[in-house]
Amino acid sequence: MVAEELQKSLGYQFKDEKLITEALTHRSYSKEFNNERLEYLGDAVLDLIVGEYLYNLFPKAEEGILSKLRAALVNEESFDKLAKRLNLGKYLFLSPAEENNKGREKPSILSSAFEALIGALYLESGFDKAKEIALKLLKEEYPKITPEELLKDYKTTLQEITQAHFGVVPEYRLLSATGPDHKKEFEIGVFINDREYARAKGRSKKAAQQEGARLTIEKLKKELNLK
Amino acid sequence: MVAEELQKSLGYQFKDEKLITEALTHRSYSKEFNNERLEYLGDAVLDLIVGEYLYNLFPKAEEGILSKLRAALVNEESFDKLAKRLNLGKYLFLSPAEENNKGREKPSILSSAFEALIGALYLESGFDKAKEIALKLLKEEYPKITPEELLKDYKTTLQEITQAHFGVVPEYRLLSATGPDHKKEFEIGVFINDREYARAKGRSKKAAQQEGARLTIEKLKKELNLK
Repeated sequence: MVAEELQKSLGYQFKDEKLITEALTHRSYSKEFNNERLEYLGDAVLDLIVGEYLYNLFPKAEEGILSKLRAALVNEESFDKLAKRLNLGKYLFLSPAEENNKGREKPSILSSAFEALIGALYLESGFDKAKEIALKLLKEEYPKITPEELLKDYKTTLQEITQAHFGVVPEYRLLSATGPDHKKEFEIGVFINDREYARAKGRSKKAAQQEGARLTIEKLKKELNLK
Repeated sequence: MVAEELQKSLGYQFKDEKLITEALTHRSYSKEFNNERLEYLGDAVLDLIVGEYLYNLFPKAEEGILSKLRAALVNEESFDKLAKRLNLGKYLFLSPAEENNKGREKPSILSSAFEALIGALYLESGFDKAKEIALKLLKEEYPKITPEELLKDYKTTLQEITQAHFGVVPEYRLLSATGPDHKKEFEIGVFINDREYARAKGRSKKAAQQEGARLTIEKLKKELNLK
């Protein structure tokens, strides 16, 4: 049986072995028979599954928020996680070159294969079964789905604000990196047009930048009288 | 019954009158109870319905082509047509201001309401029923769905080419408009950096521009050695 353990993890056994093989075949392995068409289909299946899930989970949320929440869950990073949870990389058909290129660990390849797998599930077993399986995986990976958790990308928000109001992107300057390797602390400053708006510390540069962005947004909201 | 004739045209009678009312209510009528959440849902439902339809219709088409075909069907212009086919404008709940502003004929409002209606159908009757109804409407509106028909947007293609190769957008100049109102003929010239590449005639400016764009693309393909 093709990818026996994978089918066990999914809790679904494909009747059509050719279909699951197609879902697991990367373009590098075959230009003619690969998972790109199933990926196209699975992408739309997942959009609806996640879209409906959030629609029901947040009955008071406006459309704009729901779209943002969906975008936070329906993306390469998120599907890469779900693929890794299924150990999907192990079962892929890749060219030797892509194999050597660490293709089995690449988020783009894993995310696409995950979408293709859901597309294949949809074709063979219908929407409800695909939904059941995808949601089970999603809930395991994200036990707590809240708007706060999903929307905490302050850097993106800050960039939107500064581009709209100043025509520039914010600059994150590393001010210091202290402590031993296992306990490093980074301090960054957030600058807009060379004026410093905030400082923040974090265990990683990214964490410090996020916190700096959050503080800057708060400051700008007051200064620019934004809601 | 709410929108009785509309429900007859759809071939489906809603059990939940509140749901179809929600789908027909524009934001201008009520900020709290309107069709924006259902539109968000219906948008994803339609993406999957149309996506799967094209997937089956063109079993040899690559993912890139399928995505382009879907984009040609899943858009405001297309849904506006389906909404008008259902005479949807008549049943909308709009504010008096939007009413005076010809809201019942606006493509953006009609397209959104159509998506919301499909979202409502999906919620109440499930994916298969929503699919059956949406595909019936789509096939009535587009009796012949072919890649050639759907992808014939030469103006967009030309713009992509000129921006990549010349860094500018093409200019369409009206050269003449002749004939009586009911049988007008327009002639346009296509210019890139002030050089004329083609002339074309048509019954509308848009048709003449499309034909001019097509001729220009042919010419450029030879000149620039594009495939």
